[in-house]
Amino acid sequence: MSTPYLKTDPWKIIEEGFDPNHVKSSESIFSLGNGAMGQRANFEEHYSGETFQGSYIGGVYYPDKTRVGWWKNGYPEYFAKVLNAPNWIGIDVHVNGIRLDLNNCLEIQNFRRELDMKNGVYHRSFTVQLEKNCAIEVHSTRFLSMVTGALGVIQYSIKALQDNTTLEFDSYIEGQITNQDSNWNDPFWEHTNQHASAEGLALFSHTLKTHFKICTYAHTEFVDARGAIIAAECTSEEQRLSQKAIVTLQQGEIGTATKFGGYFRCDKSSESTPLSEVKELLAAAQNQGFETVKTAHQEVWSEVWKQSDILIEGDEKAQQAIRFNIFQLNQTYNGKDPKLNIGPKGFTGEKYGGSTYWDTEAYCLPFYMATKGAEVARNLLKYRYDQLYKAIENAERLGFSGGAALYPMVTMNGEECHNEWEITFEEIHRNGAIAYAIYNYERFTGDKTYLPEMGMEVLVGIARFWAQRVNFSEAKGLYVILGVTGPNEYENNVNNNWYTNYIAQWCLLYTTEMWERLQVENQQVFKTLASKLKVRKEEVQSWQSIANQMYFPKHPEKDLFLQNDGFLDKELQTVEQLPAADRPINQHWSWDRILRSPYIKQADVLQGFYFFQEHFTMEALQTHFDYYEPFTVHESSLSPCVHAILAARLEKMEQAYAFYLRTARLDLDDYNKEVDEGLHITSMAGTWMSIVEGFGGMQMKDGALHFSPKLPQQWKAFSFKILYRNAIITVRVDQAGTRIHSSGATTSIFCNGAPITVNSDV
Amino acid sequence: MSTPYLKTDPWKIIEEGFDPNHVKSSESIFSLGNGAMGQRANFEEHYSGETFQGSYIGGVYYPDKTRVGWWKNGYPEYFAKVLNAPNWIGIDVHVNGIRLDLNNCLEIQNFRRELDMKNGVYHRSFTVQLEKNCAIEVHSTRFLSMVTGALGVIQYSIKALQDNTTLEFDSYIEGQITNQDSNWNDPFWEHTNQHASAEGLALFSHTLKTHFKICTYAHTEFVDARGAIIAAECTSEEQRLSQKAIVTLQQGEIGTATKFGGYFRCDKSSESTPLSEVKELLAAAQNQGFETVKTAHQEVWSEVWKQSDILIEGDEKAQQAIRFNIFQLNQTYNGKDPKLNIGPKGFTGEKYGGSTYWDTEAYCLPFYMATKGAEVARNLLKYRYDQLYKAIENAERLGFSGGAALYPMVTMNGEECHNEWEITFEEIHRNGAIAYAIYNYERFTGDKTYLPEMGMEVLVGIARFWAQRVNFSEAKGLYVILGVTGPNEYENNVNNNWYTNYIAQWCLLYTTEMWERLQVENQQVFKTLASKLKVRKEEVQSWQSIANQMYFPKHPEKDLFLQNDGFLDKELQTVEQLPAADRPINQHWSWDRILRSPYIKQADVLQGFYFFQEHFTMEALQTHFDYYEPFTVHESSLSPCVHAILAARLEKMEQAYAFYLRTARLDLDDYNKEVDEGLHITSMAGTWMSIVEGFGGMQMKDGALHFSPKLPQQWKAFSFKILYRNAIITVRVDQAGTRIHSSGATTSIFCNGAPITVNSDV
Repeated sequence: MSTPYLKTDPWKIIEEGFDPNHVKSSESIFSLGNGAMGQRANFEEHYSGETFQGSYIGGVYYPDKTRVGWWKNGYPEYFAKVLNAPNWIGIDVHVNGIRLDLNNCLEIQNFRRELDMKNGVYHRSFTVQLEKNCAIEVHSTRFLSMVTGALGVIQYSIKALQDNTTLEFDSYIEGQITNQDSNWNDPFWEHTNQHASAEGLALFSHTLKTHFKICTYAHTEFVDARGAIIAAECTSEEQRLSQKAIVTLQQGEIGTATKFGGYFRCDKSSESTPLSEVKELLAAAQNQGFETVKTAHQEVWSEVWKQSDILIEGDEKAQQAIRFNIFQLNQTYNGKDPKLNIGPKGFTGEKYGGSTYWDTEAYCLPFYMATKGAEVARNLLKYRYDQLYKAIENAERLGFSGGAALYPMVTMNGEECHNEWEITFEEIHRNGAIAYAIYNYERFTGDKTYLPEMGMEVLVGIARFWAQRVNFSEAKGLYVILGVTGPNEYENNVNNNWYTNYIAQWCLLYTTEMWERLQVENQQVFKTLASKLKVRKEEVQSWQSIANQMYFPKHPEKDLFLQNDGFLDKELQTVEQLPAADRPINQHWSWDRILRSPYIKQADVLQGFYFFQEHFTMEALQTHFDYYEPFTVHESSLSPCVHAILAARLEKMEQAYAFYLRTARLDLDDYNKEVDEGLHITSMAGTWMSIVEGFGGMQMKDGALHFSPKLPQQWKAFSFKILYRNAIITVRVDQAGTRIHSSGATTSIFCNGAPITVNSDV
Repeated sequence: MSTPYLKTDPWKIIEEGFDPNHVKSSESIFSLGNGAMGQRANFEEHYSGETFQGSYIGGVYYPDKTRVGWWKNGYPEYFAKVLNAPNWIGIDVHVNGIRLDLNNCLEIQNFRRELDMKNGVYHRSFTVQLEKNCAIEVHSTRFLSMVTGALGVIQYSIKALQDNTTLEFDSYIEGQITNQDSNWNDPFWEHTNQHASAEGLALFSHTLKTHFKICTYAHTEFVDARGAIIAAECTSEEQRLSQKAIVTLQQGEIGTATKFGGYFRCDKSSESTPLSEVKELLAAAQNQGFETVKTAHQEVWSEVWKQSDILIEGDEKAQQAIRFNIFQLNQTYNGKDPKLNIGPKGFTGEKYGGSTYWDTEAYCLPFYMATKGAEVARNLLKYRYDQLYKAIENAERLGFSGGAALYPMVTMNGEECHNEWEITFEEIHRNGAIAYAIYNYERFTGDKTYLPEMGMEVLVGIARFWAQRVNFSEAKGLYVILGVTGPNEYENNVNNNWYTNYIAQWCLLYTTEMWERLQVENQQVFKTLASKLKVRKEEVQSWQSIANQMYFPKHPEKDLFLQNDGFLDKELQTVEQLPAADRPINQHWSWDRILRSPYIKQADVLQGFYFFQEHFTMEALQTHFDYYEPFTVHESSLSPCVHAILAARLEKMEQAYAFYLRTARLDLDDYNKEVDEGLHITSMAGTWMSIVEGFGGMQMKDGALHFSPKLPQQWKAFSFKILYRNAIITVRVDQAGTRIHSSGATTSIFCNGAPITVNSDV
C-alpha cells in the first residue's frame, strides 16, 4: 500500500499540498460522475506533468479489433471499449503572458483538493508563483449535474496577487483525444461539424462503427472584478473550439470564468436540429445561473443521502470510507437507463474495457435494490434480458446449441470483451450469478412479474447451457463439469470446481421450479413461452435429473467440500507462511506457480456459502471458512467484502473489521497500488454489503427479512436504511443494542430471530 | 487436404501449369537451402500477384518485443525471431519495354517447376505472351551451393519468340524487406554501406540490437545470343543496387543472365576488409563458371544421398516423399555449426519464430546421428550445453533456484520465444527430451566423452528442476507434478500427466546413475563438477528418493496408465464418432471444448512407450496403443510418425502404412492446409524414423542394435543405410526377406533376435 496522503473527514476527501506523484491517483479519487457521464479529476488549466486524461459518456463505446498473442477459435473479432470523449473542461490561462502550468512554475502553495461528497461538488484551490512578481490564487469548483445528465459546471476564479495583472482565458473544447488502451491506435471518433459563436461552442462528432452521435458543447462567461461580463472572442480551429477573454486585475481582485458544458446525445434527441436543443439547454442553465444550478444539484444529492447514507460513529476513517463508496456508486449508475450498467472502473478510467461483469449481479444488485428500489434493480436485470440473444450467439460460437445461453465475462452490448481462453471460455460460473440475481430480486422485492415477463427466458437459456456443459462421467456415475475457472481465478481449467457445480445444480433446479410454478400460476405465459422457446417436458425433466446426479468434490475424511478435484494434492501451506516479499503473488510469481499453489484470489467455495447461506449450517460455514480463508490472498477487490460478511456471521469481529477496512479503503489507501488507473467501483457495492449484510446481519430466509446485528468494538454505533418492498427500514446498532424501525412493513421482519412490528424498536 | 497438384516422380518434385493459387504453396515446396542460408522459391522476375517473399540466413535473428493480449510474470520482454534478409535473387525484366510479370500478361504456357532433389537444383521454365507479338520463353536454374555456404547461383535465360526483341535486364539487390510476423513493425535491419561496380554489388547491413553483420552481394554476367558478354550499367539507389544490361535478340535467340550472390557473414570474417573477401569469393566462383560450380555442388549432394537415401520399390509416391523429407532435412541443417539448429520451418517460412524446439532432441537427433554421424549429433547436444546458463536463468524467472534449469519451449539463443502460459510455463516435459537425447546419443554412438565434458552439467540442471517442480501430496503419500501440459497440447494445466511424470522420474534416476558412474570412472571430473555445481550426496539421494516415490495415474480396473488425473471423467467417444465437418478440431472448436474432450493432438502416453520401449512389454504397448490411438486426431505434424513406428511394432501394417504416408506427404499433399506458410521440417525427421525404426524396426536394446523389419504390402522392397559407430550398416528388406550388411561392426547387431556378423546377409 502506498503511503496514504488523504485527510480523514466524515464527509470529505481532502488532499493538501501539491505532489506531482499524486496527480494521477488523485485524478481517480476525485473523479466526478452523474450516471450519464463522468470524468477524471483532470486540471482545467494546462498541465505538462504526468496525467491520465479521461472523460467518458455512459454507454458510448467502440468495437476495437481484438489483439491477442495467440488466437483461439471463439474469440470475438471485435469488442466494445469504453471511449475517451472530447475534453470540454479545458481552460488555458496565461498570466501576464506566462502560461499557468503547475508543472512549470516557481512555487505552489496551499494546494488543496476537496471532494464534498454530501453535495457532490469538487473544489480545488492553490496559490502559484509563476515568476517573480507574478502570482495568482486559483479557486475552481466543479460538478456534474444530477438534475440534467448532459450538464457539467465549472467556476474557475483567479485572484491577482499583484497589481496590473492581465489574465488571458482560453476556455476550449478539444476533440483530439485517444484511448490509452487502444489495441491498434485506431481513431475512435470522427468530428463532422463544429460551431463557435457568442452563444457557445459545439463540436459534433460520432463514434466510428457504432455511430453514437454526440455534441460536446460549452459556454463560458468571463466576469471581471466588478462583476462585468467581458466579451469573448470565439475561434474555431480544427477539432478545437475556444472562447477567449482578457481580464485585467489589480492586487486582490478576482476574475472568474463560469463554464457550462458537457455531452449532448444527438442520437437520443427527437429534434432534427440538435444544435438548437443544445442552445436551449445552455440558455436554461445560464438563465438559472451557477448558484441555482448548484443548489438543485445538491438537493438531488441530499435525497440520495437521505436514503443511502450509512452512519458510523466513533471511527472517522470507516465513516469517510463508506461514504466514499456510496458516493462513487451513485456517481456511476443511477438506474434510470436499462442500457447502462456498472463498469468496474465507472467513469474513472478505461482499464478492462466493457462495462458489465458478473460483479453487477453478484455484488452490485443488493446495493441498488436496497437504496434505490425495485425499479432500478429491475433495470439491471432487464439489461441482461435485452442481451439474451447475444448470450445465445456467444454460446453458439463455443459449440452450444438449441437456445443455450452463455453470458459474456465482460460486455457492453452483449458481446464478449475479454480474450483469455481460461476466463472467456471457462469462467462460466458467471452464468449462475445472473440466474441468482433473478432469484434474489424476486425474494427481496416481492415482484413476481419479472419472471414471466423476462426472467423465465433468461433462466431457460442458462439451464440449457448447464445441461449441455456437464458431461456424464462413467467412472463416477455422476455428472461432472470439466475445464472451468471458478471465482478463484488463481486456478484455471480445473475439473469440478465445487462452486461452479453447485450453482449449476442450483440453476437447473431453480429453473425447473420456476417453470413448474409458471405452469400453475400463469398458463397463458407458460404456453407462449413453451412454444416460443420449444421447451418440452422431457427437457425440464433432464434438468432435474442432471441436477440430482451432480458430482461434488469432497474431502475423503473431513466434512469439507473441496474447491475442485485435486485440491488436496497441492502443497497446503497457508498464506501466513508466504514471505512478505512474494506478495502480492500476482506481481511476483509466474502464472504456473500461482496455479499449482493453494492460494485463492477471492472467495470461491465461500462465495457459495455466501450466496446460499440458508443451505448450510453455521458449523459447516465455520469449517469451510477456517479451511479456505487461510489460503486466501484477497488479491481481488471483490474478496475482502465477502469475507467480512462471513467473518461477521461467525462473530470473528476483529477479522470482519479488518476485512471491512480493506474493502472500504481499498482505493483511498491504494492497497493494490493501482488507483492511478481508476477506482474499483463494483467492489464498493461489496463494501456496502459488508456493513448491511455483515455487521447488520441482514439476510433473506424463508421469505422473511432477518437482521442479526453485531457492533465492531471500534465503533460506538452504526445505522443504515433499507428500502424493503413498501417499507423503509432503519437499523441503528449501538452499544445499548439494536433499534429497527420499519415504516409500513408488509412482510415479517426479524431481529435475531424475534419478529419486529411496524414502527417497533428492538 | 487441398487437391494435390504435384506430379509424382522418384527423384523430382514437379509442378506443371501455372495457377496463381499455388504460388505461395509452391514457394514453400520448392524452397532451397544449404544449411547456411535458404530461401523460398520466389520468382526472380517481378510478380505482382500474391506471394510470400522469404530469404533467411542461418542463426541471424532479431529480439522482437513481446506482444501478448494479457501479460504474465515470467514472459520474456523480447524474443529471438528468424529474420527475412535482403533479396539478392531479383532479376527484373522488360521485353520491348513491357515488364515481365506472370500476374499481368496475356497467356502463360508450359509453366513448369522442377526440384531435382538428386542434384539439389531448382528449375523453372515457361513461355509467356506479354502482348500481341511479344512472347518469350524463360528457363531459370537455381541452387545454393553445398560447397560454399555463402554462395547461391542463378542462370536465367530468355529465348525471343519473335524478331527484334529487346530485353532489359535489371539484376538487383533489394534491402527494403520486412518480416510478415513482426510484432510492432520494427525495422530489423540497418544498411550501413553499399557498393556497386563492374565487379559486383554489395549491400552492407547489420541487424539492429543483435548486430549480425551481413554483406548481401551479387554479380550478374549478361550474355547475348552469340555468347558475347554485354557490359552492364551499375546503379546504386538507396537500399537498391542494380546491374542493368540490354540484349537484343532475333526469333529463337537466347540471352542469359548468370548471377552469383548470397550472404557473406562479415562478423565471421577475420579480415578487416570484408569487401575484398566478398570480391575474392565472387571472383573464384566466376573463374570456375556456372557449370563447374554446379558440378561441385551436385557432388556434395551425391555424397549426401550415398549415405542417407532410402529406396522404396513399387510405390513411387512413398519413394518421392521420403526423398523430399531427407532432401529438406539436409537443406536445413548440415551439422557443421554448433550455433545452428533445426527450425520447425527451416528456411521455408518465418512462422513460430525461434529455431529450436524439443523436436530437435525427440525427433531430429536420430536422423542426423544415423546419416551424418556422431559429430553432427554431438553439435546438436553442444547447442544445449552452450545455452545451459540461459536455461538456468529461465528457471529462475519462474521461481526456481540453485542451478535448476528449464530449457525454453522455443529458442534461438537460449531465451524463450514463446508466450502462452500453458505452453511456455507448463509444457515442461521438453526438459526430459533434452536429457533423453544425451542418453540416446551415448547408447547409439558409444561416445562416452560427451557426458563428463558437457552432458553431466545439463543433466544436473534438469534433475534439479524436476526435484523442485514436484511436490509431495499428503493425500497420495507420493510426489505429484501439478499444472502441466503434456505432449498432447489439447490438454492444459493438468495434474500428473503420465508422460511428464515418467520422464521426470527417468531423468532423476538417469542423472543419479550417471553421477555415480562419473564418480567411479572419472574421479577428476567428478570432483571438479561436484565443486563447480555444488552437488552434495544428499541432493543426489533426494533425486533418487523423489523418483522412487513418483505417482502415476492408473486405470482403477485395467492395466492401463491414464494420460493424466481425471482422464476417465471425460466423455470418452472416439475420433470415429466425430462428424467430419468438425475436423480438424483446432479449426472448428473453441479451446475449452478441445480441452475437455478426450481428443489427443499427438502421441502423449505413447510418446513414453516410444522413447522407453524396452521398459514395457509388447502386450502393454498393444493395450495403450489400442486405448489411446482411437482418441488421437493427429493434428500435430509430429503425431503420425510415432504412431507409424508403434503400429509397425505391433504389426498393424495397414495402419503403419497410412501413418507413413501422412507424415511423409504432409507438405506435398498439404494435409494441414498451411503449406503456403512453409514446410514442417522437424516432422520430416519423424518420417525417416517411421521407416528406419518403424518398418526397419531399428531399436537399441541392452547396448545392442536390433532390427525387426516388416515390409508393407504396398512395397516390393525398401532399403536404407545407418552410420553406426564405426560401421555402415545397409538394410534391404524385400519379399524374400531381409539382408543386412555391416562394414566393420564393432558392436553386436541383431536381426529379429539373431546376431548378424560383419558383411553377413540375413
